[in-house]
Amino acid sequence: MIYSIRDLSEKIRKSVAEISFDSEPQTLYEPIRYILSLGGKRIRPLLTLMAANLFEDDVENCMKAALGIEIFHNFSLLHDDLMDKADMRRGNPTVHRKWDANAAVLSGDAMLIEAYKYMASVPAHLLPEIIDLFSTTAMEVCQGQQFDMDFEKRTEVTESEYLEMIKLKTAVLLACSLKTGAILANASENEAALLYKYGLNIGLAFQLKDDLLDVYGDPDTFGKNIGGDIASNKKTYLLIKALKTSNGQQRAELLKWISATEFDRKEKIEAVKNIYNELNLKSISENLIEKYYLAALNFLSSVNVADGRKEELISLSEKLMYREK
Amino acid sequence: MIYSIRDLSEKIRKSVAEISFDSEPQTLYEPIRYILSLGGKRIRPLLTLMAANLFEDDVENCMKAALGIEIFHNFSLLHDDLMDKADMRRGNPTVHRKWDANAAVLSGDAMLIEAYKYMASVPAHLLPEIIDLFSTTAMEVCQGQQFDMDFEKRTEVTESEYLEMIKLKTAVLLACSLKTGAILANASENEAALLYKYGLNIGLAFQLKDDLLDVYGDPDTFGKNIGGDIASNKKTYLLIKALKTSNGQQRAELLKWISATEFDRKEKIEAVKNIYNELNLKSISENLIEKYYLAALNFLSSVNVADGRKEELISLSEKLMYREK
Repeated sequence: MIYSIRDLSEKIRKSVAEISFDSEPQTLYEPIRYILSLGGKRIRPLLTLMAANLFEDDVENCMKAALGIEIFHNFSLLHDDLMDKADMRRGNPTVHRKWDANAAVLSGDAMLIEAYKYMASVPAHLLPEIIDLFSTTAMEVCQGQQFDMDFEKRTEVTESEYLEMIKLKTAVLLACSLKTGAILANASENEAALLYKYGLNIGLAFQLKDDLLDVYGDPDTFGKNIGGDIASNKKTYLLIKALKTSNGQQRAELLKWISATEFDRKEKIEAVKNIYNELNLKSISENLIEKYYLAALNFLSSVNVADGRKEELISLSEKLMYREK
Repeated sequence: MIYSIRDLSEKIRKSVAEISFDSEPQTLYEPIRYILSLGGKRIRPLLTLMAANLFEDDVENCMKAALGIEIFHNFSLLHDDLMDKADMRRGNPTVHRKWDANAAVLSGDAMLIEAYKYMASVPAHLLPEIIDLFSTTAMEVCQGQQFDMDFEKRTEVTESEYLEMIKLKTAVLLACSLKTGAILANASENEAALLYKYGLNIGLAFQLKDDLLDVYGDPDTFGKNIGGDIASNKKTYLLIKALKTSNGQQRAELLKWISATEFDRKEKIEAVKNIYNELNLKSISENLIEKYYLAALNFLSSVNVADGRKEELISLSEKLMYREK
């Protein structure tokens, strides 16, 4: 059968809730249970199951790998929050705030190992390919995080450097999620590769949309405080593009706000947003998102299964693109 | 052929030096190259190759897995040093001192993933068993580190809790190194299990010897500052046994030194060592080491290969036991 997004999400919710850590010491596993309990959209395991469901009716055989990817994703959030000194995650204190830095380091390590354990539960003949894809992706996610941290210390980052960074930090894991489902559902190499490319492009569009929502999102529906990226000088697509396309006066004002150590938050956000508006960055950004989105759909349309089987994945893509939070 | 310890060590030295990280960003890989360049005895990869050499003449097929274990070991040192706030590792600044905490976290993560990449290079039909053993062991090492950190916050730790902790933190990885070599050399399940048990017992003896050398080692040959564990109240076998077997007066003095925030380092070490002497802990500890050592040799003697092939492993065991540093 073809599962709806809703049905698969419910399956995933149940399975995540059933992940148990019976071993001692519990001090190692409490932070893991905690971060996994904070919820989130569970997009990555959803993509794994949906990719598999393109090719097979029963997707239960993919659940453990799907959970492995979700555990990995939460591991990366846990360590990233520590490195970024973030206080909150999904409306709750981050692990290093609720416990301490050591708990974040070691429980994170245990999560990465646990993720591998889940990935290793796939059928033996598929294990080499699954583990190779997973390790390559995991390393790329680390590279992306390192680029992101390195960029924070630089004044100028090029657009292509930024796109490469978000590809590594965000897009490859979505691509890996899809390809994992395809491999486990015995899709051909070509089909698996098309889904990987679909995921890469959706991932890029997804992250660019995130950058956009931070500035232009509706405060009532967008979860985070609007303008958070501007306030913290985060090198988003918008800021990078603004620094590149601004005239002398705009650039001077941007740099003034970036270097300001004391400022009125609202005033700074307003001023920077004004420059973004003058530079027409909302529609420039939307055009780029649309470009990646269409490229993604194009790869999906080339996948050789009946169109009816793709409907849910197309519907999910739309939701991710036209979301307001 | 049967390789000497010296020949295998030289092979490992060369192979470790050839590990390369060509990917970007180099900021992610420099700390990895650094910690791998600091040397060390490379005992774990040596055990992998020596275990394989019991059953096969050419051990080249085990080198990548042997390196994977060494990379994992160095990952755990890197993160442990961060958690323990250690300043020095093998006479050089630790990664979080030379760079910063974020570098230690993220480069450590990358090392753990790289270790899995190396482990995953084994022949496909052996991959499920090798990955399962490796993940189980890696998780146990995390559990051991967590117990160790938890113990630091407690006043009393029992002898059996301590032995379980060092089993997890140290012994299982030596056991895993040996079993990995056995599996890759197509040893029988029974042979592989015997080598695992040999490794566990050698590992326990090895760590207890480490505790002993900290107090009773020769300052000229023992690398670390003698008495470092006493000065820092580290819950070693000696301290745990002392707290348990001391009389009221000795116990009061021990607790006085443990709770002292200002003290003369030399005076504290001398005083605690005197209590250890009164309690005869040197020979009690040596007896326990001997017990594990003999158990280890017993398991090794049951391995069904010609005695001549075991000589180098027995010689290594002796070196580890009768070392003065």
